[in-house]
Amino acid sequence: MYIVIMAGGRGTRFWPRSRDRKPKHLLDILSERTIIQETVDRLLPLVPPERILIVTGRTHAAELARQLPDIPAENILIEPMGRNTAPCIGLAAHFVRRLDPGAVMAVLPADHLITDGGRFLDVLRAAAEAAAPGHHLVTIGINPTAPETGYGYLELGEEEGTARGEKVWQVRSVREKPDRETAQAFLAEGCYVWNSGMFVWTAAAIIDAIGQWLPDLAGGLARIDTALGTDRENAVLEDVYPGLPSISVDYGVMEKADNVLVLRGDFGWSDVGSWDALWEVSPKDPSGNVLKGSVAVTGTRNSLVVARDRLVALAGVEDLIVVDTEDALLVCRRGDSQRVKELVDLLEKEGLTQYL
Amino acid sequence: MYIVIMAGGRGTRFWPRSRDRKPKHLLDILSERTIIQETVDRLLPLVPPERILIVTGRTHAAELARQLPDIPAENILIEPMGRNTAPCIGLAAHFVRRLDPGAVMAVLPADHLITDGGRFLDVLRAAAEAAAPGHHLVTIGINPTAPETGYGYLELGEEEGTARGEKVWQVRSVREKPDRETAQAFLAEGCYVWNSGMFVWTAAAIIDAIGQWLPDLAGGLARIDTALGTDRENAVLEDVYPGLPSISVDYGVMEKADNVLVLRGDFGWSDVGSWDALWEVSPKDPSGNVLKGSVAVTGTRNSLVVARDRLVALAGVEDLIVVDTEDALLVCRRGDSQRVKELVDLLEKEGLTQYL
Repeated sequence: MYIVIMAGGRGTRFWPRSRDRKPKHLLDILSERTIIQETVDRLLPLVPPERILIVTGRTHAAELARQLPDIPAENILIEPMGRNTAPCIGLAAHFVRRLDPGAVMAVLPADHLITDGGRFLDVLRAAAEAAAPGHHLVTIGINPTAPETGYGYLELGEEEGTARGEKVWQVRSVREKPDRETAQAFLAEGCYVWNSGMFVWTAAAIIDAIGQWLPDLAGGLARIDTALGTDRENAVLEDVYPGLPSISVDYGVMEKADNVLVLRGDFGWSDVGSWDALWEVSPKDPSGNVLKGSVAVTGTRNSLVVARDRLVALAGVEDLIVVDTEDALLVCRRGDSQRVKELVDLLEKEGLTQYL
Repeated sequence: MYIVIMAGGRGTRFWPRSRDRKPKHLLDILSERTIIQETVDRLLPLVPPERILIVTGRTHAAELARQLPDIPAENILIEPMGRNTAPCIGLAAHFVRRLDPGAVMAVLPADHLITDGGRFLDVLRAAAEAAAPGHHLVTIGINPTAPETGYGYLELGEEEGTARGEKVWQVRSVREKPDRETAQAFLAEGCYVWNSGMFVWTAAAIIDAIGQWLPDLAGGLARIDTALGTDRENAVLEDVYPGLPSISVDYGVMEKADNVLVLRGDFGWSDVGSWDALWEVSPKDPSGNVLKGSVAVTGTRNSLVVARDRLVALAGVEDLIVVDTEDALLVCRRGDSQRVKELVDLLEKEGLTQYL
């Protein structure tokens, strides 16, 4: 079994801690370790570092290598540019197939929070068993706890069977991010799970599926495949990538395929997609505050403060997000942290690129 | 005419910009100049620097000398410790009387905001004329614009006459800080003015008044007087000051004296006693924000941001005070900036003295 960790993205939603050169998975906002370090740590009981591949962009490769010294350098695959998840996964699948034609690969995002790592590995092992025959595309769904409109949903169909004691379902339909009302209906019906973006399949199965549903992409990947491991690899990647369709594996493959199976993940999951989400998933003091670093508060409630080298002092405020860095400071209403993106756009528009 | 500027105080209310070593009057929070620099600049059309005395504590003398290079070093009087305004003014009065037994002296706080400097000097000249005969203690009242409970009030009595075209009133009563209801009544009656803490009198007149109403203080000052300008000056100050009563000139003299006159000041005055007050007196952008330094905002209203070397970015917030410094940052609800004092007390209690 191989693990493919997708580590792309600009991570503007965690500005000012996340920057062009430091997307979310490279930050230590959840613990002393960075998020990708935690992601890798969590997998080591299952696979050795040599079986972990990381797909990223040129900007972040050096920092990834620094943070993950046990991952062999050749396991860090560099896309010339981000083209969404389908090309990224396709590239990794060809890479894995060359190493081991019968290999199962698990595709995992770099930047998710999982609180029960043991259960996570149980489910991953079961998914690998379900995927091993090569007939199915297996995905891991998350039992929804709220009518989230920021996630895609999978509708469970018939129970297909079990793998290592975990139930495996057929997928009746794949739904894109719903509106609030639809999300509430999904939650009420009980047969919908969140699409976690975690997939398990054989390299051959996903390459076949791309061939069936995304033939343009398959053609490009076939050109890349012939160059993988040769002197021409970089040149061909540079040449082919700009012409690949920029499309997600959800939209491009999973919504169309009829051989999708799903396992339910109950291992305490969050994609921690914003400062708001970080407050949500973090342990709070009796006033509802999450305080990291050197912080002094009086009369302050339900706020998230991420301090660094400086003292951050709050008085008489509530529902705030305050994030300090060496050169920039964010103060944002909690519950409104999608506005961070607005700020980043504003800085870009005003040419304040040193802060991006 | 001499000017005596009272430059004491810890200035905790402007934390984190104000510190033990940098009280409010040493800060450049109103303009490019520090507040005491503005205070002195405003007086220079009236008196040369040699006629300006500054009374301060040991901690701030060097910084004052640095900020005010035109003021002769011997004009900076150092109190061994703060004992409220009556000893401070008494010390200065003895100093002035030695220089010129018939001199008029104006006593001014170091840290007030005055928007119409020309009118201010008109009123000061008129007050000096009213004080020159030496029969009266003259004070400058401010026409109240709101039922402030943070100021003392003077009740105007009969009109005494005019000086340089300015009306001069007798004072019927001196009122300490009133409650809200009383302040509203004062405002409605129209014959009350705020006590600005600005006084004009001959040195002899205030020394006489201290002799009459504060004999203990007068005795201590008499001992100091014999040592002023001698080698013993510092030693005697150190010896006498701890035994002086710590009392304000308002409570100790002005409330008791029956020879107080008042002129109405209409020169745009504020004591700028807090971050809240700084927002109040500052020009605002169309969203009601006062933004100083490198600041980016989106969806932000009625807030005060004082940035320094770092970018401060606000999103989706209102009624906030955000003040950045090199080593500490304040985020406080606007309208609640008395809590800054709470924070300073908290830091002191927790031993975080490096931030005080």
